[in-house]
Amino acid sequence: KRSYKITLLPGDGIGPEVISVAKDILLLTGSLHGIKLEFQEKLLGGAALDATGVPLPDDTLSAAKQSDAVLLGAIGGYKWDKNEKHLKPETGLLQLREGLQVFANLRPATVFPQLVDASTLKREVAEGVDLMVVRELTGGIYFGKPRGFGTNENGEETGFNTEIYAAHEIDRIARVAFNIARKRGGKLCSVDKANVLEASMFWRKRVVALAQEYPDVELSHMYVDNAAMQLVRYPKQFDTIVTNNIFGDILSDEASMITGSIGMLPSASLGDSGPGLFEPIHGSAPDIAGQDKANPFATVLSAAMLLKYGLGEVEAAERIERAVLETLNRGFRTADIYSDGTKLVGCKQLGEEILKSV
Amino acid sequence: KRSYKITLLPGDGIGPEVISVAKDILLLTGSLHGIKLEFQEKLLGGAALDATGVPLPDDTLSAAKQSDAVLLGAIGGYKWDKNEKHLKPETGLLQLREGLQVFANLRPATVFPQLVDASTLKREVAEGVDLMVVRELTGGIYFGKPRGFGTNENGEETGFNTEIYAAHEIDRIARVAFNIARKRGGKLCSVDKANVLEASMFWRKRVVALAQEYPDVELSHMYVDNAAMQLVRYPKQFDTIVTNNIFGDILSDEASMITGSIGMLPSASLGDSGPGLFEPIHGSAPDIAGQDKANPFATVLSAAMLLKYGLGEVEAAERIERAVLETLNRGFRTADIYSDGTKLVGCKQLGEEILKSV
Ligand SMILES: CC(C)[C@H](C(=O)O)[C@@H](O)C(=O)O
Ligand SMILES: CC(C)[C@H](C(=O)O)[C@@H](O)C(=O)O
Repeated sequence: KRSYKITLLPGDGIGPEVISVAKDILLLTGSLHGIKLEFQEKLLGGAALDATGVPLPDDTLSAAKQSDAVLLGAIGGYKWDKNEKHLKPETGLLQLREGLQVFANLRPATVFPQLVDASTLKREVAEGVDLMVVRELTGGIYFGKPRGFGTNENGEETGFNTEIYAAHEIDRIARVAFNIARKRGGKLCSVDKANVLEASMFWRKRVVALAQEYPDVELSHMYVDNAAMQLVRYPKQFDTIVTNNIFGDILSDEASMITGSIGMLPSASLGDSGPGLFEPIHGSAPDIAGQDKANPFATVLSAAMLLKYGLGEVEAAERIERAVLETLNRGFRTADIYSDGTKLVGCKQLGEEILKSV
Repeated sequence: KRSYKITLLPGDGIGPEVISVAKDILLLTGSLHGIKLEFQEKLLGGAALDATGVPLPDDTLSAAKQSDAVLLGAIGGYKWDKNEKHLKPETGLLQLREGLQVFANLRPATVFPQLVDASTLKREVAEGVDLMVVRELTGGIYFGKPRGFGTNENGEETGFNTEIYAAHEIDRIARVAFNIARKRGGKLCSVDKANVLEASMFWRKRVVALAQEYPDVELSHMYVDNAAMQLVRYPKQFDTIVTNNIFGDILSDEASMITGSIGMLPSASLGDSGPGLFEPIHGSAPDIAGQDKANPFATVLSAAMLLKYGLGEVEAAERIERAVLETLNRGFRTADIYSDGTKLVGCKQLGEEILKSV
C-alpha cells in the first residue's frame, strides 16, 4: 500500500472549511486507489500569528518539509492588514514558498462549460478558454536584494526593490513550462518587458536558448502590457504562459477572473525535489468565513493537483476531477457560482455531494 | 490672437497618416477659436534611426522642448525589433519622456456608447465604463539604477533592474491624480503591491499622507493583482486610478482593451512645466501602414487633450470631442471599429468627415 504524509495548512477565513472538505475527499479517493494518506494540521498566516506571534512557525515549516505534499486553504484577513511586514500573514506564505523552494507556480485558468455564463466576457470569447500560467515563484522582485527604505543623494526618502534573475532560475522555470506546454497544446508564450528591462532581456535570451531542446514546442514572446490586453481580447490564443514572479502574479489573477469562477481554480507550486504546495487561488474571504458559504471546489481541485503533480497518483487525481465535473452536472452550486435552475448548497453539503460522485 | 508652437512627431507605421489628419483638424479648430498654431515636424523612433542612426535626435528633443506641446503618432516596427537597446525606437520614446520630464501619463479608458459592442465584455459590464489611469512615467523600474547584466556570488550570469521611488516623485504624481479625481467622480484608487514590495509600502505611505489635503476625494488602495481582476470583473467601480510606471503600463493597456476600441483612446503625458506629450495609445500597426486603413480618432482625441491639458484651450478641445462623437453618430467607421449598418471609410476620408463636424 502506497503511503504518504500530507501537511494541511487550513490558514484563515474560509480556509478551515474548504480544507475540511478536501481532506474527506482525499481520504475516500485514496482508499479507492490503495493509497494511505496520513494528515497533520499546522498553523500558517493569521492563525499562526495569533497563536505563536509569527506567520510561519518553525514547526510548520519543518513539518511541511518532512511531508510528501502540502495542502493550503487560504491566509490573511482584515485583522492583520495593518501589521508590519514581518508580521503579515502574506509574509508567512512567502517564507513557506521560499522554505520549500517551490519555484514553479502552476495556475490553470479553465472555463467550465457549466459556468461559462459566470464570466463577464461574452460567451463566445470565454467558451473553451483553457490556459496555464507558469509563474516563477521564488525569485525576481519578490525576493531580490537590495530592498528597503533609504535616502537618495538629495537627502530624500526612498523605497526600493530589486528585480533580479540568475541564469539557473530562468532555466529551471522555463524547463517546467516547456514540459507542461509539451503535454498540453504544444504552445508556450513567454511574457516579459524586454523592450525596457534588462532583467527581461536576460530572461528572453535564456528562454530562447533553451527552446532548442524543445523543438516540438512552439515558442512565442509577448510584452506584459500586450499580454494583459490579449487576455481580454482573445484569451483562447493562449495555451501555456511562462513569466516572472510579479508579472505572473498580475496575469494569472487576470486570467482567472476571465473564467468568471475563481472559486473553481486550483494551483500547484513545485520545486525540483521535496514536497509541493497546493492551494486554491482564491483568498480567505473573511466576510463569509464560518458561515458555511465557501466554495470548496478550488481546494478539492487543488487536492487533485496534489495527487497528480505532488504524488504522481494520476488515476486518483482524475477520479477527483471527474467527481467535480459530475457534481457540477448534477447541478450543485455554492452561492458564488449559483445561477437560475441550479441547486444552491453550502460548503459542507457540496462536499458531501462531491463525495457521492467520487 | 493666441499663438502656439506644436512639434509633430509622426514616427513610424501608421503614425504619419494619423498625424496628418490630426493636424488638419487642429488647424481648422484653431482658426475657429482664434488660435494660431505653428507646426514643425521632427523625427522619432524608427524613422529617426533610419535617417540619423539614433532613435531620438538632439534636434528633435530640443525642438520639442522649445515648443508649447508635442503630438506624437506612433513608433516601432518589425524592422527595428532586433536592435540593441540603445538603438530601439522604444528607447527614443523613453528618452523623450525623460527629456521632457513628463512624469504624469493620463490614460482615459472610455467606452463610447456607439461602440460598446466592440468590447469582448458583456454589454452590461462594458457600458458606461469611464475611467482614467494616471501612470507615473519617468521613474520606477523603467529608469531605476543599478540596472544591467552581472555575475552573482556563484559566478552565474544575471539580469537586473531597480524599482525605486523618491518622496517627491510619488508626491507629484499623487497630486496630479488627486486633482484629476476631484474634477471627475471624486474617487481615487491607488494601486500598489504593498503586501510585498517596500517601494509600494513607501508609495502608499506618501499617498495616504497627501490625502489629508484632498478631503473631498475618496481614496482607496488596491493590490495590483486584484486590480487586474477587478478591471475584468466590474470596471465601472473605478473612477481615477493612480499607480507606478510598470503597473500603469500593464493596467492601462488592460483597461483600454476592456473598452473594445483602442483605436479610439488618446493619452497625455504632462510635467510640472514645459510642453506636454500627446499620443494615441495604440501602436504603429506596421501591417496596415501606408494603406489608408488606420483609425485616426485616437490621435484626433489626443489633439483635443493637447488643446485642453497642454494649452488650456478647453473650448477648442471640446469642439473636437464633439466633432468625434458627431462623426461616430453619422456612422463613419474605420475597419477596426466597423460593424453592420455603419459606413466603412479609410483614414483620410474619416479625417474629412471629422473636419465637416468640427
Ligand atoms: C498574498 C500575496 C503575497 C501572493 C503573491 O503576491 O504572490 C498572492 O497574491 C498570490 O498570488 O499567491
Ligand atoms: C513602447 C514602450 C516602451 C511603452 C512603455 O512601456 O511605456 C509603451 O508600452 C507605452 O505604454 O507607452
